[in-house]
Amino acid sequence: MTDSIKTIGILGGGQLGMMLAQAALKLGHRCVFLEDADGVPAALYGQVFKYNELDDFITASDVFTLEFENTPIKTAKSLASLEHKGSLFPPTNALEIAQDRLAEKVLFNRLNIDTVPFMAVNSLDELQTATNKLGLPLVLKTSRGGYDGKGQFVIKTQSDIATAWEELGDAVTGDGGLTDAPAPLIAEGFIHFSREVSIIAVRSQNGDICYYPLVENHHTNGILSKTIAPAANADHLIEQAQSNISKILSHLDYVGVLTLELFVSDDGLIANEIAPRVHNSGHWTIEGANTSQFENHIRAVLGLPLGDTGIIKPSVMLNVIGKYPDVSELLTHTGVHFHHYHKAERDGRKIGHITVMSDDNDGIVTNITQLLTS
Amino acid sequence: MTDSIKTIGILGGGQLGMMLAQAALKLGHRCVFLEDADGVPAALYGQVFKYNELDDFITASDVFTLEFENTPIKTAKSLASLEHKGSLFPPTNALEIAQDRLAEKVLFNRLNIDTVPFMAVNSLDELQTATNKLGLPLVLKTSRGGYDGKGQFVIKTQSDIATAWEELGDAVTGDGGLTDAPAPLIAEGFIHFSREVSIIAVRSQNGDICYYPLVENHHTNGILSKTIAPAANADHLIEQAQSNISKILSHLDYVGVLTLELFVSDDGLIANEIAPRVHNSGHWTIEGANTSQFENHIRAVLGLPLGDTGIIKPSVMLNVIGKYPDVSELLTHTGVHFHHYHKAERDGRKIGHITVMSDDNDGIVTNITQLLTS
Repeated sequence: MTDSIKTIGILGGGQLGMMLAQAALKLGHRCVFLEDADGVPAALYGQVFKYNELDDFITASDVFTLEFENTPIKTAKSLASLEHKGSLFPPTNALEIAQDRLAEKVLFNRLNIDTVPFMAVNSLDELQTATNKLGLPLVLKTSRGGYDGKGQFVIKTQSDIATAWEELGDAVTGDGGLTDAPAPLIAEGFIHFSREVSIIAVRSQNGDICYYPLVENHHTNGILSKTIAPAANADHLIEQAQSNISKILSHLDYVGVLTLELFVSDDGLIANEIAPRVHNSGHWTIEGANTSQFENHIRAVLGLPLGDTGIIKPSVMLNVIGKYPDVSELLTHTGVHFHHYHKAERDGRKIGHITVMSDDNDGIVTNITQLLTS
Repeated sequence: MTDSIKTIGILGGGQLGMMLAQAALKLGHRCVFLEDADGVPAALYGQVFKYNELDDFITASDVFTLEFENTPIKTAKSLASLEHKGSLFPPTNALEIAQDRLAEKVLFNRLNIDTVPFMAVNSLDELQTATNKLGLPLVLKTSRGGYDGKGQFVIKTQSDIATAWEELGDAVTGDGGLTDAPAPLIAEGFIHFSREVSIIAVRSQNGDICYYPLVENHHTNGILSKTIAPAANADHLIEQAQSNISKILSHLDYVGVLTLELFVSDDGLIANEIAPRVHNSGHWTIEGANTSQFENHIRAVLGLPLGDTGIIKPSVMLNVIGKYPDVSELLTHTGVHFHHYHKAERDGRKIGHITVMSDDNDGIVTNITQLLTS
């Protein structure tokens, strides 16, 4: 062993942590995890500490990062400020922004990044005002918590307003247990968009930035089901996407991988949200890019030079949701990379993904999609 | 979890076991290892049992394979014949052949696979006879044991004969501890060859065979230092290489990955030896082929369909021997994949490998080779 072997303490122990560990181990480093759930995927790659073992987690780690953006800010801040330890990457301010949809969109606009029109909503009255100003339909969301389509309500008609408030208003008063602390709702106006894309970029400790190609994302029941890399017919959007994420990275003095989800409208890109971490829409990079998002995040966290983010071959990533496919059948297809997360089957749960990187992606994706839904 | 999750019991816990486990875990399976050495690379990916814990290793495993061809035949046979367990893949007869250079070359010739001329040597007299018949120079080798250039002696002149016998003759009488049991030496005549290549193939439980491209291997001090995939100017050799390995696979009713090392002579390919396992000259397949040798071996062992062995991009694999390079410097190069084995530095020891898969492999390989030897 050499003295340069580091142990990376990762907040969260899900599949993102697992894939970060796969990358870290290949580079000769180790990972430990902070995670209260039992039997998590990352446990196969390093020791998992519970929150009541925080001190042991700290002792075991040389530097900290995260795979779960709802990591408590208090924990994040305490890790970022420890003496005799590397810092926490990304910085906690990125975490705070990502945990608050309202603050996030305010920041986007401040950085001249287009968003849908939006308003803070603290009462039924304000919701009524928002519907008048933004028009219908609109989406009412909690500003904190919620993911994969949870914690939001689409208001289509005036008669939906009361129901929407009944459903989500507790978040404002703090009565409903939807979030840790009371916080305003956010009402977002509808903009017609043709598709959803995302861009992943990584920033090093000395400020270098590398961008992955823009990819196109498809959702099923509010959960990402498919990513096409690179996005087709998107060359004219690349500059705007890179400019947007670059402004965010620099503003936050960010280190590591950041993801920006965007809508494609007739007027260009509309920023939806950031994820201050490696992202499901970047899983294809494990096989499809010169350096995976996971390895580049680890490189950034360890102060190593970033790796080339160029594409090796066009790829399509399919999530395995709820139920595993017949693997014997799946593996008959050429250029298929199956990543099993060692998680129990459960409706709506991401339990694996498949990257297709073949000379006939469309044909194979059609067959596998049938296999996944049969 | 599904019922189809298997635990693969691997004989040996070195880097080959580690990379087999990386592939198995991605497919949703687990690995355990049988290995007496401490702190082995595979320990990061699954439980390691010592030989005196064989029963626990057996209990933990559903099916068996190996990463170390000098696994004791007795242990292999006992695992292959267990009731209520899957078999041992590859079969023990492949192991017996691979452990005996003499039996190996006899089998090659029986299958009409060309070898160098060779003779068994049981005494100094027989060695003298061999030098007369085969001419000088010749190589005297133990028929069992020895690897990476150990256990062999190049006889260049008549005066070397006595020294060679003194060095290796103990293997015949069993006095020197060179091998477990007394076994003849093998004298091999010299054939002029221009380069060394290898072919890796995988055979499934139902007899399907897939071939990886022929690759070119370079050695430094008897240890593989570089593999170029695919081998340049080798199209005319592919048919012979595939035919050779196919005959061996079928004859042995082999299941899993098999490697055949070959010399390129003016008259075509000369078979040198087999390795009944994944092989150092196939490490480039992790990034460079549609399916890695490790995943294909796991697929074969589990009775899954084989994956496409086609090349994604020409690759060069460099072994990291003895000392780790400056990783910050290494990772400045584009298309470089570093695999650190978590082993301590030691002269002549394989402690990692680097796969270069870029648009300028030659240039980058030159730079990295300097870095590795500086």
